Amino acid sequence: VVLTFLRRATEEEQQAQSKKALKKQQKEAEKAAKKAEKQAKLVSMFWVCCLTSGAPFQLVLYRALVKVEDLTLEKVDQLLWVRARVHTSRAKGKQCFLVLRQQQFNVQALVAVGDRASKQMVKFAANITKESIVDVEAVVRRVEQKIESCSQQDIELHIERIFVISQAEPRLPLQLDDAVRPDGEGEEEGRATVNQDTRLDNRVIDLRTTTSQAIFRLQSGVCQLFRDTLTKKGFVEIQTPKIISAASEGGANVFTVSYFKTSAYLAQSPQLYKQMCICADFDKVFCVGPVFRAEDSNTHRHLTEFVGLDIEMAFNYHYHEVIDSITDTMVQIFKGLRDNFQTEIQTVNKQFPSEPFKFLEPTLRLEFQEAVAMLREAGVEMGDEEDLSTPNEKLLGRLVKEKYDTDFYVLDKYPLAVRPFYTMPDPNNPKYSNSYDMFMRGEEILSGAQRVHDAELLTERALHHQIDLEKIKAYIDSFRYGAPPHGGGGIGLERVCMLYLGLHNVRQTSMFPRDPKRLTP
Amino acid sequence: VVLTFLRRATEEEQQAQSKKALKKQQKEAEKAAKKAEKQAKLVSMFWVCCLTSGAPFQLVLYRALVKVEDLTLEKVDQLLWVRARVHTSRAKGKQCFLVLRQQQFNVQALVAVGDRASKQMVKFAANITKESIVDVEAVVRRVEQKIESCSQQDIELHIERIFVISQAEPRLPLQLDDAVRPDGEGEEEGRATVNQDTRLDNRVIDLRTTTSQAIFRLQSGVCQLFRDTLTKKGFVEIQTPKIISAASEGGANVFTVSYFKTSAYLAQSPQLYKQMCICADFDKVFCVGPVFRAEDSNTHRHLTEFVGLDIEMAFNYHYHEVIDSITDTMVQIFKGLRDNFQTEIQTVNKQFPSEPFKFLEPTLRLEFQEAVAMLREAGVEMGDEEDLSTPNEKLLGRLVKEKYDTDFYVLDKYPLAVRPFYTMPDPNNPKYSNSYDMFMRGEEILSGAQRVHDAELLTERALHHQIDLEKIKAYIDSFRYGAPPHGGGGIGLERVCMLYLGLHNVRQTSMFPRDPKRLTP
Repeated sequence: VVLTFLRRATEEEQQAQSKKALKKQQKEAEKAAKKAEKQAKLVSMFWVCCLTSGAPFQLVLYRALVKVEDLTLEKVDQLLWVRARVHTSRAKGKQCFLVLRQQQFNVQALVAVGDRASKQMVKFAANITKESIVDVEAVVRRVEQKIESCSQQDIELHIERIFVISQAEPRLPLQLDDAVRPDGEGEEEGRATVNQDTRLDNRVIDLRTTTSQAIFRLQSGVCQLFRDTLTKKGFVEIQTPKIISAASEGGANVFTVSYFKTSAYLAQSPQLYKQMCICADFDKVFCVGPVFRAEDSNTHRHLTEFVGLDIEMAFNYHYHEVIDSITDTMVQIFKGLRDNFQTEIQTVNKQFPSEPFKFLEPTLRLEFQEAVAMLREAGVEMGDEEDLSTPNEKLLGRLVKEKYDTDFYVLDKYPLAVRPFYTMPDPNNPKYSNSYDMFMRGEEILSGAQRVHDAELLTERALHHQIDLEKIKAYIDSFRYGAPPHGGGGIGLERVCMLYLGLHNVRQTSMFPRDPKRLTP
Repeated sequence: VVLTFLRRATEEEQQAQSKKALKKQQKEAEKAAKKAEKQAKLVSMFWVCCLTSGAPFQLVLYRALVKVEDLTLEKVDQLLWVRARVHTSRAKGKQCFLVLRQQQFNVQALVAVGDRASKQMVKFAANITKESIVDVEAVVRRVEQKIESCSQQDIELHIERIFVISQAEPRLPLQLDDAVRPDGEGEEEGRATVNQDTRLDNRVIDLRTTTSQAIFRLQSGVCQLFRDTLTKKGFVEIQTPKIISAASEGGANVFTVSYFKTSAYLAQSPQLYKQMCICADFDKVFCVGPVFRAEDSNTHRHLTEFVGLDIEMAFNYHYHEVIDSITDTMVQIFKGLRDNFQTEIQTVNKQFPSEPFKFLEPTLRLEFQEAVAMLREAGVEMGDEEDLSTPNEKLLGRLVKEKYDTDFYVLDKYPLAVRPFYTMPDPNNPKYSNSYDMFMRGEEILSGAQRVHDAELLTERALHHQIDLEKIKAYIDSFRYGAPPHGGGGIGLERVCMLYLGLHNVRQTSMFPRDPKRLTP
């Protein structure tokens, strides 16, 4: 990056600027005082105004800012600049103690009346509201006793100058310390935790917690591992349209969009488009994108909009080639998280304890009939062609964990009756199908199948499901000009993150979740 | 990948299976004959039926399939299996010549009456419809004269067995050879090209052409280069919601969605959410996802749904830090394409010739006022605070190319009046703003700015733009609890691909384009 236009400001320039800033600030403070009473005056005194609206060219500063994470014993006695949030501030006689926070790291800082700081500056520091962003110039000092409450335990900052870059309103809708407190902890002392709606209503603050920072950095990692693994396997990334002309899967649970003078729908999955790409010779494809379900389900695991990690591939001789590709991709994700995201996993575990995620290599594959037998042995009554209920899926997860010691497995050969029309029937038993679900900690994260790649059989299956052929004409026609046998599946990103971390609500792993009752922020 | 359940079929098993398949096939052929007249009979004779509906477990074949791309002189005299499409077939006496195609590669193949093939087999081969997928067992033979029309020029395949895996209908809606013919070529001989609507109506076939295969493999590369570059720079990938409760940017050009008992909108950009992530301490973020514009524009460069490559980042002292990050990312993409996608670029150039894409390091940055001066010098009449029209943008692109020899540059400091309400005004000149566009070959590919990060100033700017404050409350409130100065921008993926390759319609770089008149396929 070339920053030739930025030059290091000399001491004189900084002072000149300080004076200029101070002057401008005093004027603005007068206005502010009229508006917002006297209290605003003190706080605004040290503002760096140029930052509010972009610095004039000739007044740009260049200060190397040091990261909080890098404030270690190696930096002792250095005078340096840090930009961070005020996590807490506490005045005590002629001193003011601050905790400065930057993402998941924090450090103790001190302003004390003396050569370098006036009484007024201590008062100023004590009045900076929590969550404000400040620039401090400070000397790094070794501490006698480790500071257990901070990530930087061996040093503290002795502040010589302090500027408020952005001031937070005095009343926060939630306290960050409350938001990371494990359920039940400190209840006797009357310490609060934060309920989910308050968190989500104030998501911008809730996302600042160490737990949220860890969750969404891990989520970013899942996407990257998914794509990198598939790219190495020769898959091509595709982009599929979300506005579609017909609700493909029977018309239920689909959102309607006004499209100029007509109506359209939001895609419930990219599956039909992935398949067209296979018919168009892309051989192996994946895509990462939003998926929309107009389902009025208010559960811990349903969202109306979520992120789909989708796979589709041609295979040579057997659809188990597809299952093997997908399970291997999941295993690569699990390994990548285990090896590269330990800090994040442990941070989340502090607030939400859970057992480490277990998986086998190769991945366990059970047939649906075996699962039914296991459930019946455990006392469940169910028919051969009945789908698994959510409680039965969870029970099965526990039984599988006991028997095979894995949190991840594939259930193969679902009854044909409970799968979508484009699912390939099992050639050996017309009651079953070449389809599968995958489970993490007893909850479904993927649904997939070999697809019907023959236009005639597809037509027959669509009619059987009473789907209007006219509406899926383009889809069926895709298979009329030579289509390789193929299969795939769709993974829910938020569920993978939730279940890998042992969390209990998919809203914790969706940055801005959407459900039947929530559309904001 | 563990494929323990697949074992190599012995010769006996293959023969047994052939017989069994033949038997089953004969039965089915009888049925088919009744349904679809006699003609179906011959073609279906050699089908591998098991593939239509998933092979029974014990009948799974394991044949190593060789890729067409790997059929070189090294393989001469080997007997091997290939799965490919029949690109053309032509009978000539006792022989049938086929061209077999796999993605961008093709090879000549031959069935000749003799020890290994019957007269009936030659007839069968000659009757296989174009675009059908076949498995052939063949010996690789060196050819005397290079086969100029194929990618594999030194060898041909002498077929001993042939199976139809998936049969194409006899009448194709478009011919692949026509679809890759450069405009104007062969017009005297009455050779056709394919118009855009025919292509898009039959996209599954159009995407099989070498040109389309190259375009979308390059597009996949753009996404990967974008993400890899930003990940290396410390950016975090985020997922933002597409269903939103309020049309943020004034309410024009937004699609409405029925959302249970209320209405919602499709996001015109992830910008507000990216900004919330910056306020939530993610520091630097990017996202790749669909963007929706309900604009009734029927031009070569507008789509109602396209893929946005979005960036947002906190900066330290000047918004040019943001410009530098974005331009460097673009330069890394251009270099990655130039170095790793030459085959794709040349394939596209064969059909659509264009000059190689030129860029400078560091990227050229001009101010809006300089651009106006250049245009005026070229005879254009325009006001100081007037936005650039599309023809003026193109003219400017030509002037810049002449003067600086670059196809990529940044135009900085747009008039405040022509930018959205959240754009930071220029502190030195209230007529201008800290905002910029980026251009490739004279067309806009990115729009970006420093954003207002102060809730009061943002409120003032929204009121100035007559935006209903109640509707953007959550957005404005995000800046009340400490917000760092920040900026970003949104890039249109399809435009980047179109302009990099020197194409002339954004529909060529969107797999399934959406415009006011097109919702299918």
